[in-house]
Amino acid sequence: MKRISLLGASGSIGTQTLDIIRLHPEQFQLTAFSVGRNIEFAAKVIAEFGPDLVSVQRREDLDRLRPFLAHTKAVYGENGLLEVALHPDSSLLVNAVVGSVGLVPTLGAIEAGKTIAIANKETLVTAGHLVTEAARRHGVDLLPVDSEHSAIFQALNGEDEKRISRLILTASGGSFRDQTRADLESVTLEDALKHPNWSMGSKITIDSATMMNKGLEVIEAHWLFGLPYNQIDVVLHKESIIHSMVEFVDRSVMAQLGTPDMRVPIQYALTYPDRLPLPDAKQLQLWEIGTLHFQQMDLERFRCLRFAYEAGRMGGSLPTVMNAANEAAVEAFLQRKISFLQIEELIEQAMYHHTVCPNPGLEEIREIDAAARRYVMGQI
Amino acid sequence: MKRISLLGASGSIGTQTLDIIRLHPEQFQLTAFSVGRNIEFAAKVIAEFGPDLVSVQRREDLDRLRPFLAHTKAVYGENGLLEVALHPDSSLLVNAVVGSVGLVPTLGAIEAGKTIAIANKETLVTAGHLVTEAARRHGVDLLPVDSEHSAIFQALNGEDEKRISRLILTASGGSFRDQTRADLESVTLEDALKHPNWSMGSKITIDSATMMNKGLEVIEAHWLFGLPYNQIDVVLHKESIIHSMVEFVDRSVMAQLGTPDMRVPIQYALTYPDRLPLPDAKQLQLWEIGTLHFQQMDLERFRCLRFAYEAGRMGGSLPTVMNAANEAAVEAFLQRKISFLQIEELIEQAMYHHTVCPNPGLEEIREIDAAARRYVMGQI
Repeated sequence: MKRISLLGASGSIGTQTLDIIRLHPEQFQLTAFSVGRNIEFAAKVIAEFGPDLVSVQRREDLDRLRPFLAHTKAVYGENGLLEVALHPDSSLLVNAVVGSVGLVPTLGAIEAGKTIAIANKETLVTAGHLVTEAARRHGVDLLPVDSEHSAIFQALNGEDEKRISRLILTASGGSFRDQTRADLESVTLEDALKHPNWSMGSKITIDSATMMNKGLEVIEAHWLFGLPYNQIDVVLHKESIIHSMVEFVDRSVMAQLGTPDMRVPIQYALTYPDRLPLPDAKQLQLWEIGTLHFQQMDLERFRCLRFAYEAGRMGGSLPTVMNAANEAAVEAFLQRKISFLQIEELIEQAMYHHTVCPNPGLEEIREIDAAARRYVMGQI
Repeated sequence: MKRISLLGASGSIGTQTLDIIRLHPEQFQLTAFSVGRNIEFAAKVIAEFGPDLVSVQRREDLDRLRPFLAHTKAVYGENGLLEVALHPDSSLLVNAVVGSVGLVPTLGAIEAGKTIAIANKETLVTAGHLVTEAARRHGVDLLPVDSEHSAIFQALNGEDEKRISRLILTASGGSFRDQTRADLESVTLEDALKHPNWSMGSKITIDSATMMNKGLEVIEAHWLFGLPYNQIDVVLHKESIIHSMVEFVDRSVMAQLGTPDMRVPIQYALTYPDRLPLPDAKQLQLWEIGTLHFQQMDLERFRCLRFAYEAGRMGGSLPTVMNAANEAAVEAFLQRKISFLQIEELIEQAMYHHTVCPNPGLEEIREIDAAARRYVMGQI
């Protein structure tokens, strides 16, 4: 029985993590979880899974939750997240919150020796150097949850990491794959939210449209798999059937494929190194799909991907700035305050405006993150 | 240092095995090898690799070889093959002969505890029950060499075989992939020898055109990976970039990809579980290829594949009959004695004519093999 702490239970990854726990009650148990402000959802999770601990975002929501608590303790805020992550009975933390708020609880859980299933990109993007160093020190596994890194992780099964020659991330291209830059001048929020292959949260759907999502994944891959940026490639693959690949020194390429279903990588992180049935997942029949397409990635068409390579190569605090500027700009776009192309303009400005700090600690990362957000707000 | 015995050095797999040994002189050493009648080639191999032992097909060729022997012992015939396979200094046998002559030496090497790199399909097809049972008893690894089984073997790296739900072999479709059965009435030997993707020996190129090659691979896969035939699928994939796949119980599919280069699976069998660089192998760039195609396999269009599933499911001596009838029919086709479509007619006749022996031993397999060949010759 694996006992699980789940941060971000009401999001897309969170609810699918609950699906997996529900599917395998003999294998998994929900020990502690957090939600944001969706108290009704939290009440349902408590009723169904009977966890020991729940954390909500705000203190005032505790009162609304009280009627649903029997044997479940309720906490709130950033300390609440940390308490969920550190729950003494859980051996595995699923970090599925969106944004840099996942960083401190993840570091805490690593120090407590828990296995980390990481769906929170920002944790690795802003503090990859701290997180991977802590994981090494405490002998803790960092298991990727998103489909691309899970594909790479699966392709590395039984392999010697010294024999990797290249990671090849696939990118669906997002909502605007077939648009030119000129087309992008006039796209709307509604257009951007229509992802061709995956049903995801709105922040990540916009990040797919700008290709920042792939940029964040490149930086994540750098930290998760310890490879320099010139050994991490991205290829456009609009069908999203090959989820990513690893090329080895003998030119053999291992790939993981499947129909788009996030429960597969989520479950793999929970069952690793074993696998369990996922009975209602759709079987991949390549002859039904017929054709898989691949295109070279154009870093001028998809500038956010170029920014990510630049930020990653420069390192230090620059990925934090890029990520914070992106979060602020996407938020402004979701609130219809800026146009689609302004997202990348604002990120670029924030990156140029920043003086890189080479090896930022947790406190500096927080400050630099906040400063980059303020800078972006100031430009709008 | 791995010391290697190589059966069938002058064939397509044999010469590429020598390439790999040549590339990595610190890792590999050729201890013993066999050729058929190509004495000039044998002389060159002796001069370059200085092995302890060479075996040729016929006694009378020993005299022609004598001037080239200094510290190398020369033997001949089936006993010679066995002596190569059993050479006390070699720890790995590469079985790259064509036809059922590879069976006895392979069983001998297994009993002597040597690792087997198996490129000889007939060994598994006719005596899979004996070979896999012997390998289990002696704790010996059977490492596949052909690209499809190597792909599956690589995809199984680090996985629990109990979690496999399906093997998916890819088939290029061979020389006549896009022809209808009506077209096949008039195809010539020259047409059949033009394989679209791989440069191979003539027997296997014809087997690709009839799809018998894939049929033999299905039976091989059954024995190598221990799965029933309803869990072994074949999909047409004309680019031969995905070399084969494994689907697991969680619907995750692991695949091995690469440019067509037999040295990759050959080297993998030699280096397993490690990998080594193969510097001049062409890197796979999927965006250069652009498109991968997949089609459902039609067992009426490709009847030899249907025969193989039938022979495999029935088991016993039927795969031996199918294989022997195929070898005889292909030989007759290569000698222009029969037409292309007569190959499958003759195989089908031989299979119907045979009364299945459920659990044949080595001697029965030899007799049944010979009888099937005689039967086919008698029909021509």
